[in-house]
Amino acid sequence: MSTLQQLVSSAAKLSVSPQSYHPLDPINAAEIAGAVYAIKSYIAQNEKSNDYRLWFKSIQLIDPPKKVLAPYLDAWHEARARGHQVDKLPRHAEALLGVKRKDNTCTWYEFRVRVDGKAVVEKAEPTPADLHVPADVAEMLACEEALMKNEEFLAACKKIGVPAHAKIIPDGWIYGADSTQRSERYTPFMVYLSFNENEDSCHYSAPLPIVPVLNSDTFELVRLDYTPILGTGEKTILDLDGPFPWHLYIQNEYDQAILESMGENFRKDLKPLRVVQPEGASFRLEGRVLRWQKWEIHIGFNAREGIVLSDIRYDGRKTFYRLSVSDMTVPYGDPRAPYHRKQAFDLGDLGAGICANELALGCDCLGDILYLDWDHLGVQGQNTTAKSVICIHEQDEGIGWKHTNYRTNNPSVTRNRVLVIQSILTVANYEYIFAWKFDQSAAVHLETRATGILSTAAILPGETSPYGNIVSPGVLATNHQHIFCVRIDPSIDGHNNTVVQEDSVPMPYDKHNPPADNRWGVGYVVEKTPFKVSGFADADPMKNRVFKITNPNVVNPISGKPVGYKLVPAPSQLMIAHPDSIQYARAEFGEHHLYVTKHVDGEFYGGGKFTNMSNGNAKGMRTFVARNDNVENDDVVVWHSFGLTHNPRVEDFPVMPCEVHTISLKPNDFFTRK
Amino acid sequence: MSTLQQLVSSAAKLSVSPQSYHPLDPINAAEIAGAVYAIKSYIAQNEKSNDYRLWFKSIQLIDPPKKVLAPYLDAWHEARARGHQVDKLPRHAEALLGVKRKDNTCTWYEFRVRVDGKAVVEKAEPTPADLHVPADVAEMLACEEALMKNEEFLAACKKIGVPAHAKIIPDGWIYGADSTQRSERYTPFMVYLSFNENEDSCHYSAPLPIVPVLNSDTFELVRLDYTPILGTGEKTILDLDGPFPWHLYIQNEYDQAILESMGENFRKDLKPLRVVQPEGASFRLEGRVLRWQKWEIHIGFNAREGIVLSDIRYDGRKTFYRLSVSDMTVPYGDPRAPYHRKQAFDLGDLGAGICANELALGCDCLGDILYLDWDHLGVQGQNTTAKSVICIHEQDEGIGWKHTNYRTNNPSVTRNRVLVIQSILTVANYEYIFAWKFDQSAAVHLETRATGILSTAAILPGETSPYGNIVSPGVLATNHQHIFCVRIDPSIDGHNNTVVQEDSVPMPYDKHNPPADNRWGVGYVVEKTPFKVSGFADADPMKNRVFKITNPNVVNPISGKPVGYKLVPAPSQLMIAHPDSIQYARAEFGEHHLYVTKHVDGEFYGGGKFTNMSNGNAKGMRTFVARNDNVENDDVVVWHSFGLTHNPRVEDFPVMPCEVHTISLKPNDFFTRK
Repeated sequence: MSTLQQLVSSAAKLSVSPQSYHPLDPINAAEIAGAVYAIKSYIAQNEKSNDYRLWFKSIQLIDPPKKVLAPYLDAWHEARARGHQVDKLPRHAEALLGVKRKDNTCTWYEFRVRVDGKAVVEKAEPTPADLHVPADVAEMLACEEALMKNEEFLAACKKIGVPAHAKIIPDGWIYGADSTQRSERYTPFMVYLSFNENEDSCHYSAPLPIVPVLNSDTFELVRLDYTPILGTGEKTILDLDGPFPWHLYIQNEYDQAILESMGENFRKDLKPLRVVQPEGASFRLEGRVLRWQKWEIHIGFNAREGIVLSDIRYDGRKTFYRLSVSDMTVPYGDPRAPYHRKQAFDLGDLGAGICANELALGCDCLGDILYLDWDHLGVQGQNTTAKSVICIHEQDEGIGWKHTNYRTNNPSVTRNRVLVIQSILTVANYEYIFAWKFDQSAAVHLETRATGILSTAAILPGETSPYGNIVSPGVLATNHQHIFCVRIDPSIDGHNNTVVQEDSVPMPYDKHNPPADNRWGVGYVVEKTPFKVSGFADADPMKNRVFKITNPNVVNPISGKPVGYKLVPAPSQLMIAHPDSIQYARAEFGEHHLYVTKHVDGEFYGGGKFTNMSNGNAKGMRTFVARNDNVENDDVVVWHSFGLTHNPRVEDFPVMPCEVHTISLKPNDFFTRK
Repeated sequence: MSTLQQLVSSAAKLSVSPQSYHPLDPINAAEIAGAVYAIKSYIAQNEKSNDYRLWFKSIQLIDPPKKVLAPYLDAWHEARARGHQVDKLPRHAEALLGVKRKDNTCTWYEFRVRVDGKAVVEKAEPTPADLHVPADVAEMLACEEALMKNEEFLAACKKIGVPAHAKIIPDGWIYGADSTQRSERYTPFMVYLSFNENEDSCHYSAPLPIVPVLNSDTFELVRLDYTPILGTGEKTILDLDGPFPWHLYIQNEYDQAILESMGENFRKDLKPLRVVQPEGASFRLEGRVLRWQKWEIHIGFNAREGIVLSDIRYDGRKTFYRLSVSDMTVPYGDPRAPYHRKQAFDLGDLGAGICANELALGCDCLGDILYLDWDHLGVQGQNTTAKSVICIHEQDEGIGWKHTNYRTNNPSVTRNRVLVIQSILTVANYEYIFAWKFDQSAAVHLETRATGILSTAAILPGETSPYGNIVSPGVLATNHQHIFCVRIDPSIDGHNNTVVQEDSVPMPYDKHNPPADNRWGVGYVVEKTPFKVSGFADADPMKNRVFKITNPNVVNPISGKPVGYKLVPAPSQLMIAHPDSIQYARAEFGEHHLYVTKHVDGEFYGGGKFTNMSNGNAKGMRTFVARNDNVENDDVVVWHSFGLTHNPRVEDFPVMPCEVHTISLKPNDFFTRK
């Protein structure tokens, strides 16, 4: 009997309550503690001396292989319907941690640990030698602490005349590669001044034209870069004839208490608007399986991707096996050193889970909100719980549909109620709000909101620059892009699906010799091109290009066409950087709007697993596509890249109003009327 | 003293209360009654015999000329600020009506009537001989009544075997031109069957393959067209070997009462979600001037455009002189006669005001809603009031901006409250929801929602077609487009503005010989191209193309750039029909995404004033653009065309879930921080 058969046949057996177990539930506190203990023991046995300390980056669930999990989930549903339960699957976690030795060497490991029952280390491998592990906030703060004690840096600040009353605030950033040569792992700092004692004062209004670079592992200062101080060219503060006019910096505050203390007048004429749900929310959660209307959704969460939605079914029918935000790159367009290195991968370089806000502090959603916590671990391996990293609520989104019979004047109208599963990331200065929305017409939407504070740079007051906009005196907000990559693992009525590109194209016409089938030149048809092998395509809104994820094995009896879901790709600008640049090479998912690959277990990250300081060597999307796998009537994965080119406005500072983008997956001939 | 000087100098004088008078207020009931009396008297004096009856199409305000109105509005605001009032401006209305004589001739007239005080006819001109007046619902119903008594039509229905128990329901439609030859004004009918006594039964599930064509003026039957009955080719029901299988038609109902009577199970698990505004709404209306937050907006309404927003100011600064939906075309892609004529201009062929829903019947917005009525006239010239054609309310649209300080973990977060001014049109089977939204960050959005019922055609059950989708047995929903044209008359800090196209483009790079200013190939800059003379441009999302409406005379002191508003054009597919087709010629605004013209009084309609059966002769956008006017630092008008190509899904029937599109006008360096 194969494992697969065993799993399916085990469906009828009873064990734990279905509320308390799902194979995709995030690693819990007990599992984390067990894994950390096993890892520590493993390291202790394998390290030559005990002069080391561990630095834990992350731990997260390893999804069971699809060939095991997919039938298991079917059995899980079937058993639940009968009031039965299924046996548990083995649980595995992957952990990322470094061994920092007294001699300043550091080895980073990927661990695979079985975590159900007594934890067992199954694999411990150094991370790839040519790639780097992500940064983390604790590491940045440790670097910051070291920097603030560094004599060379402090002397440099003094030399350029930083006013004595100013507080120096260095923000850890990401060090993008600018060549294919390997370097140590570095943490650069964007440094700012604050002239206000309040720690929530907006220091981004007073950038300092120095970028210190530290070794991320040893926290040692590597060098000081001086930034260009004019609109173009490389002249730095060291080249200035006189002192930098620090006094021209003005305060741009956003914190309400600070603004109040400054005597700012707030608008007082907005009357309260409350969302009231007297009978409570319409959804319910069993374990982490959310049920709302005809939807069933498992809500996972991990360090790298944040929210992961799995095994999504509508009215009992499979729709999507797994939905997640796979990756994101934020390349900046100022070509001058050291700014040319500014290209963050906010998921791969840090982690969407790692950066998730504790939402009860400022989710501020309306209505009845349910929060989910996340068990994670601190850098020392200590258990820690991030409270309320996910919020779940319902939202009214206006009219769902309407028709008025013009003869009887009778209107029929529905509201569009949606279920929102949301998480908010803070990545130093920036914020991203990711909201997965499920509606009553069986559509799924991902809404991204970009907000937060622009990454600012010092510029001599009075200067302007072609590389950005002046948003406050002496403050250059650089032009940049945000390119998101969403991973869509469909299961439209089953796991074998075909992606079809559909263009609306005119029929041939010649007015001097009109064709019989298009005599007046108004005809158009839909040109369909299925993906046969893994590949890519671009949005083409001028052809109304849509991509349909279909199941060719299930035909809609009404239309006679395969059942499917439709993705209208967001036709946003892709990587502007030159195709020969390292920036472009790193953004493996930033070349095209849509990629179709064949499912491979664990292949979740469009930019590759290790994006931090990658230089085209991260084995991401380009590697997945190059396999030339069959993707016709097969287990496909669809990746959609989209985003925004953000050339800042004065209005975007100090905090930018949300820039909202939505992509939608809508059923297309998936349903019959009945 | 010029009129202009008189107006400005009259600002200090007092007259009526500012609440009771605004020069852009729609024509009121008394003015309509006066105008109709004057028009009737005029006609009575000028008609040779009294054997005629009048058919009134519409009456609406003629906006005062901009050179008068613009300074007047400044004076109006200034006077209001001082608690004074200004003298009234003369009021004029334009009316459209026909004289139908006993000998079956009909003359259509455009009247200009001064309506303040005793009404005076100032102009009465026959409508242009080569163009046609719009249809209207009363006319369609009159045609319908005539059709249902027409022996030829009833015999034809009998001949094709319409079941005796079926009720025949003809929906009046629009007759699109297919040649440049003039014809009389016609009304075609899409005919359906109903098998349910209830008048709200959805007859669109049972289309009849006959299109009768009636003379719109005389209501006489012109001819019967038989529609193609297969997926391709021209074979009609007359060519069928056997009877049409009417019995295969199924009922697709949407009306709740009917569905309940059929035993349909409704979802019962959606718990109430209420928007409560315990202190009421935050806006107030003085006359028709809406004040909300820092916005001031005059809300007009007319027969042709529906909502017209004028004299829009933010914090006392001018932003937009006039905003309106100018036009819309709905071309269908089935090339076969008689479907090749299916191209509606829902504003020009009927009128957005004329088709507006009475919203208290089914607006179904949440929160505190204010409704505005509209005084209009019936076809006999009788005064009539459409109740609640506009609804105004506030809406919460999620997070406005957020930032969490990662050092203190303190979040700052705002909600995004918006003010919505909305109107809903029913155009026979289809519905359009137009919502103008104003937000707290000084952005203006137009949200369009397309909903309602697809225009369906009969197809032999079992057939499929390249020209559409089968949405119910025997029901072909044809592929079609909706192209909207929004008219934006800006007044960014004044009336002289310049429109600048901005593209984000890479800096030159060669990796073998890297340029000094772009050594790593990551640099990009914004390429700016101002419109100098009237013209057009297309969206180019791959270049992140945006259009900035700037005032070159007012520089933002922070950024050093002209103050402006940014329009990100919706890059939707434009007219698919061949450029040599009549369909294409008619859609004068459907060739490009953006047009920039110089303001001309009364030039409001992208497709021309008379679109009904126009054939390229309507003197719309192409005429406006061809003037080659200066538009640099001048009184410009911006027109944005966008829409959707709608290839129906089974899910779109019987009522399609809203297809939502939003375009935004966002301040761009319009504000300084302070």
